Amino acid sequence: MSFLSLLDFAAVLVFALTGALVASRAQLDLIGFGFFAGLTGLGGGTVRDILLDRTPIWIVDPTYLAIAGVAAVLVFFTAHLLESRYNAILWLDALALPVAVAAGAGVSHELGQPWAIVLVMGVATGCAGGLMRDVVANEVPLVLKKGELYVTCAFVGSSAILLTPWIGVLAAGAACAVLTFALRAGSLVWGWSLPVYKPRPPRR
Amino acid sequence: MSFLSLLDFAAVLVFALTGALVASRAQLDLIGFGFFAGLTGLGGGTVRDILLDRTPIWIVDPTYLAIAGVAAVLVFFTAHLLESRYNAILWLDALALPVAVAAGAGVSHELGQPWAIVLVMGVATGCAGGLMRDVVANEVPLVLKKGELYVTCAFVGSSAILLTPWIGVLAAGAACAVLTFALRAGSLVWGWSLPVYKPRPPRR
Amino acid sequence: MSFLSLLDFAAVLVFALTGALVASRAQLDLIGFGFFAGLTGLGGGTVRDILLDRTPIWIVDPTYLAIAGVAAVLVFFTAHLLESRYNAILWLDALALPVAVAAGAGVSHELGQPWAIVLVMGVATGCAGGLMRDVVANEVPLVLKKGELYVTCAFVGSSAILLTPWIGVLAAGAACAVLTFALRAGSLVWGWSLPVYKPRPPRR
Repeated sequence: MSFLSLLDFAAVLVFALTGALVASRAQLDLIGFGFFAGLTGLGGGTVRDILLDRTPIWIVDPTYLAIAGVAAVLVFFTAHLLESRYNAILWLDALALPVAVAAGAGVSHELGQPWAIVLVMGVATGCAGGLMRDVVANEVPLVLKKGELYVTCAFVGSSAILLTPWIGVLAAGAACAVLTFALRAGSLVWGWSLPVYKPRPPRR
Repeated sequence: MSFLSLLDFAAVLVFALTGALVASRAQLDLIGFGFFAGLTGLGGGTVRDILLDRTPIWIVDPTYLAIAGVAAVLVFFTAHLLESRYNAILWLDALALPVAVAAGAGVSHELGQPWAIVLVMGVATGCAGGLMRDVVANEVPLVLKKGELYVTCAFVGSSAILLTPWIGVLAAGAACAVLTFALRAGSLVWGWSLPVYKPRPPRR
Repeated sequence: MSFLSLLDFAAVLVFALTGALVASRAQLDLIGFGFFAGLTGLGGGTVRDILLDRTPIWIVDPTYLAIAGVAAVLVFFTAHLLESRYNAILWLDALALPVAVAAGAGVSHELGQPWAIVLVMGVATGCAGGLMRDVVANEVPLVLKKGELYVTCAFVGSSAILLTPWIGVLAAGAACAVLTFALRAGSLVWGWSLPVYKPRPPRR
């Protein structure tokens, strides 16, 4: 198995876990867990593949579906052990985002896309699954959270893949994931953020 | 006309009716009815076709668009005759879901997809149109309703299509639809459900 | 540059401005502005291209991404100068809709699609970007606004492209945009609307 498909598998697994946890907050049944695990785990890669006119990975290789199913079953029977499911979602998402960004940017780079497309595909693959999860589950999308870095982590992390010609896809993909995770974790723990748009204060 | 395209037509019609009824709840004009009828009626099949890299059915054959248009006009002028539009939506949706599941699973099976993909396509074709309708119209998606079978009906019903090699596509498609509808109707009338995830009760 | 790609560029720019303004209402950072500018600006054309099985315009020509980026930067540093950002969104959207409708209908017509598909593609290209913007940003979609023409403007305007064989694509595209804008502006300023569905008044 190549490094890039390993990343794809890992991203599917961890995002699927977050989807199943959202299903647990909505008190769905086991099949509902599977639905959200699949939507979240496979959503980002599917968007990337359709935009790039490739057959979605999980249609080529149904193993991905099995992974989402395993994640659903696992969470269905163990979610009650968690202290805070919301925190688990937040941190698993913070772990899945970097892996999906690296997978998205890596595959696009390997296909010879120009750098701007590579960046966008990193962001789209990273964010689309979680976005669909939140929109369908009526939760506030993480991309909308004020004063938190989210899309920004994906965007900055994505750019590390452009180092591939110099350091190889393995190191560049790893750099991509580490950079994205570091920014997201820093934002969650220490409140790192960029200046946000603030409406002009009222004139006196 | 083949059995499978008949299913596709029927699913479009009944889902389009639910879309138009949602438009009536939002008090839109006739074109708004057509918009929701088209989105709901054609949404599921379009998702299936794009995932399987086929041209969406309604681009191949614009008759589908005419069906959605007819549904919109019909509902615009008759919805006031209904006792409860919400109940009409619920039951028409319960009728459309099985037909769309059978159409989605049937087409995928005919294309020679592996069984796991066939199941997922049945679920996706069945659920995607209604999901887009509910998300765009700001209603709580039916897939999120607690203590009701929805995705589960699609998933279980979908599996009946795998009997095709033994009993033929006609009987398998019919079994698929009947099974899906029976589960959904049982859930609406007698409250059938699967055990749902319940957070651990607080320890004393 | 052809007339149709000029329309595409213009639609991307103006829709991207509305996306960035929505990001400013959500108080996001600069990258968040870029995310919404891209989603809104490129969403409609991407939906059209995927439905018609073409490579999305911005993958063929990343200049489109640069336009969305410029819109994001522009709005980030100047939005505070606006009296009412909500009005700016409403009117920029009213300006972008006609251009996107003309671009969507024009491209589909040029590809030799039948008239029903051309109409639908005009509506889809016009409405999809703004719809995704509103759904992701948790705003009420403009297509749902009671007593306002929105989808209707796109639908009626779209039909003007069918005059192409007689008056040429330049005049037909312009007619398409002018008609869409006139209807939308009339609706915003003078409250033009079509009769909407009204539930039956209670019987005595």
